[in-house]
Amino acid sequence: MTEDRTPSRFETGLKTLAEIDGKAGEALMQGCSDIAPDFAKILIEFPFGDIYSRPGLDLKSREMVAVAALAAVGNALPQLKGHIGAALNVGVTRTEIVEILMQIAIHAGFPPALSGLSAAKEVFAARDADGE
Amino acid sequence: MTEDRTPSRFETGLKTLAEIDGKAGEALMQGCSDIAPDFAKILIEFPFGDIYSRPGLDLKSREMVAVAALAAVGNALPQLKGHIGAALNVGVTRTEIVEILMQIAIHAGFPPALSGLSAAKEVFAARDADGE
Amino acid sequence: MTEDRTPSRFETGLKTLAEIDGKAGEALMQGCSDIAPDFAKILIEFPFGDIYSRPGLDLKSREMVAVAALAAVGNALPQLKGHIGAALNVGVTRTEIVEILMQIAIHAGFPPALSGLSAAKEVFAARDADGE
Amino acid sequence: MTEDRTPSRFETGLKTLAEIDGKAGEALMQGCSDIAPDFAKILIEFPFGDIYSRPGLDLKSREMVAVAALAAVGNALPQLKGHIGAALNVGVTRTEIVEILMQIAIHAGFPPALSGLSAAKEVFAARDADGE
Amino acid sequence: MTEDRTPSRFETGLKTLAEIDGKAGEALMQGCSDIAPDFAKILIEFPFGDIYSRPGLDLKSREMVAVAALAAVGNALPQLKGHIGAALNVGVTRTEIVEILMQIAIHAGFPPALSGLSAAKEVFAARDADGE
Amino acid sequence: MTEDRTPSRFETGLKTLAEIDGKAGEALMQGCSDIAPDFAKILIEFPFGDIYSRPGLDLKSREMVAVAALAAVGNALPQLKGHIGAALNVGVTRTEIVEILMQIAIHAGFPPALSGLSAAKEVFAARDADGE
Repeated sequence: MTEDRTPSRFETGLKTLAEIDGKAGEALMQGCSDIAPDFAKILIEFPFGDIYSRPGLDLKSREMVAVAALAAVGNALPQLKGHIGAALNVGVTRTEIVEILMQIAIHAGFPPALSGLSAAKEVFAARDADGE
Repeated sequence: MTEDRTPSRFETGLKTLAEIDGKAGEALMQGCSDIAPDFAKILIEFPFGDIYSRPGLDLKSREMVAVAALAAVGNALPQLKGHIGAALNVGVTRTEIVEILMQIAIHAGFPPALSGLSAAKEVFAARDADGE
Repeated sequence: MTEDRTPSRFETGLKTLAEIDGKAGEALMQGCSDIAPDFAKILIEFPFGDIYSRPGLDLKSREMVAVAALAAVGNALPQLKGHIGAALNVGVTRTEIVEILMQIAIHAGFPPALSGLSAAKEVFAARDADGE
Repeated sequence: MTEDRTPSRFETGLKTLAEIDGKAGEALMQGCSDIAPDFAKILIEFPFGDIYSRPGLDLKSREMVAVAALAAVGNALPQLKGHIGAALNVGVTRTEIVEILMQIAIHAGFPPALSGLSAAKEVFAARDADGE
Repeated sequence: MTEDRTPSRFETGLKTLAEIDGKAGEALMQGCSDIAPDFAKILIEFPFGDIYSRPGLDLKSREMVAVAALAAVGNALPQLKGHIGAALNVGVTRTEIVEILMQIAIHAGFPPALSGLSAAKEVFAARDADGE
Repeated sequence: MTEDRTPSRFETGLKTLAEIDGKAGEALMQGCSDIAPDFAKILIEFPFGDIYSRPGLDLKSREMVAVAALAAVGNALPQLKGHIGAALNVGVTRTEIVEILMQIAIHAGFPPALSGLSAAKEVFAARDADGE
């Protein structure tokens, strides 16, 4: 029996990721599992097992932070789209996402705000097409 | 009588700024009022009058977003310190700020996370010294 | 009669934008008018109404500055292309644009200089195709 | 007879580039030879004639450095792919390239590490298809 | 007699630098002449000998471009200050410099605009103290 | 007896860090141990326990990569200095470090190359003063 065993970081990461986005874990890992299988595992273990699963900041706030940081750095479009979807999944509203991206114009300029808004438009449209 | 007049963007900006940080407005404007007096005014009008004052994202979330974005871009230390203080003022806890900065390690690497944590340490210490 | 009314920031922005690029205003606004209609308005009001319309720096210099800054930050390709076109419209020559982009190699490295030159090549080719 | 003449920077650059990647020199120059023919020449002269050809750091180390720096800045995808290929040509192994890109997660965050790994995947696949 | 000899890139660079800033050449070289003497030479040869000395963009425009690009990248404070001084030397006015830096808020966010303005304030004050 | 137990990630990280820099582990942890004690632990576990300790890239190459990546991103001065020291400790020569930093001028521009060289100058001088 294993139920009183401490879960591994990988298990914790997968569990946290499942709360954010049911299918994201697999997709994330598949992206680099052939070229860097250990990195696929690290991607679950460090960001989601070590950081996102920590108490002290709820998942809704974590996803707002992810959207803000990824939009601000400006060269992380696939990750930004993933976290816009994740943000919606944990209860951030479309309006809140749009407001976050508009605010990025102050902190990092209009170009990353505009590319963030384009990314959001795509994610929202894909959700609408899926009937979500 | 002016009470039914629409407030100017500057007035709205000052009012929003007062909710975030009573003294920040003056300090912000003084920083560039001699060399670029119009920019001092724009600094109140655009970020705080046009963006922060919008409904759709509460001030606590806006300050989390500011801390995340400024830590991630990594070359905005004075602004980051200002917004760490502002975040505390609108109810973001020290723990939440630390968690946001730790999360930046994922999105932008360990160096900006570490410099964000140093900035937070300074802001928290200054508050402790002020008996806040 | 409204002719002695102070123009709004939006009107000033549209007028400045018309001097730079007749069709750009509409295109800019359409890009985010569905997802963030207020941002579409802000895009005209702040950059073009508040900043570009200021005396103290002529439009030709402003467009050189825009091309230089956007090439240097390196993650603003759609904006860079827009401002290369705008620069041509206000009298910056193709040679000057190429020289600005070559100079970016010094300040920000060869990759953003090369991607700026590719962007310029596309804009120039589209103008040639249009018989401009 | 010219054999005791000091080679020009362009000649030195082409020679160094030939050691790294036989076909890269031409491709590099063609990319901007129409719009900025002098820059095409500078691209050979400065990076490869002045820097890469210097003693003090072997070509294998230089290509590791190029892959690391280009992955870290995150907006230099065509150059990153070029240097991943060049790295393979001078003896950096696929495993070493993957390890360098994984390490970028520490220094610059997970997004540039992941986009570096995607770039490597493409370069490796193209080599496999070529039977290399 | 050497007057009909083509000047070396180093000589051309020094001459261009002298037009921009009489003392800058020496200071630039001294900064790294002990640790990287060849780089001290390259610093004169490539930026000033190869690029700045080219026809096609006048020195006043080149210095506007330098100020814009260096302010936008945001982590080049010593170079930004140097080029603000150089810009003044070749005829860019204080007002134009301030306008360029304000415009950076659009392209790269308020933090680099504000740090650019602080840099300008220091350079202007040092000039005033020198009675310039 | 514990000798046949798998070492923890923290133990592996400390061991790797000891090979690179005997005193660095403690210094790194002290920097944020008061404000973010868990991050102090993560700093050892993830970069050094999970990544640096991996086979496939020797420590000398890893430190070249760290110096290149940190110089290129340009806003990680304390980390850059730390890794210049670490690079020296694992056998990278001063000449190689200078060459890496010169090469950064190609990939990310002259400003980060120059600030990297200043950082190296400080680290080398401190070593000389220590009689190393």
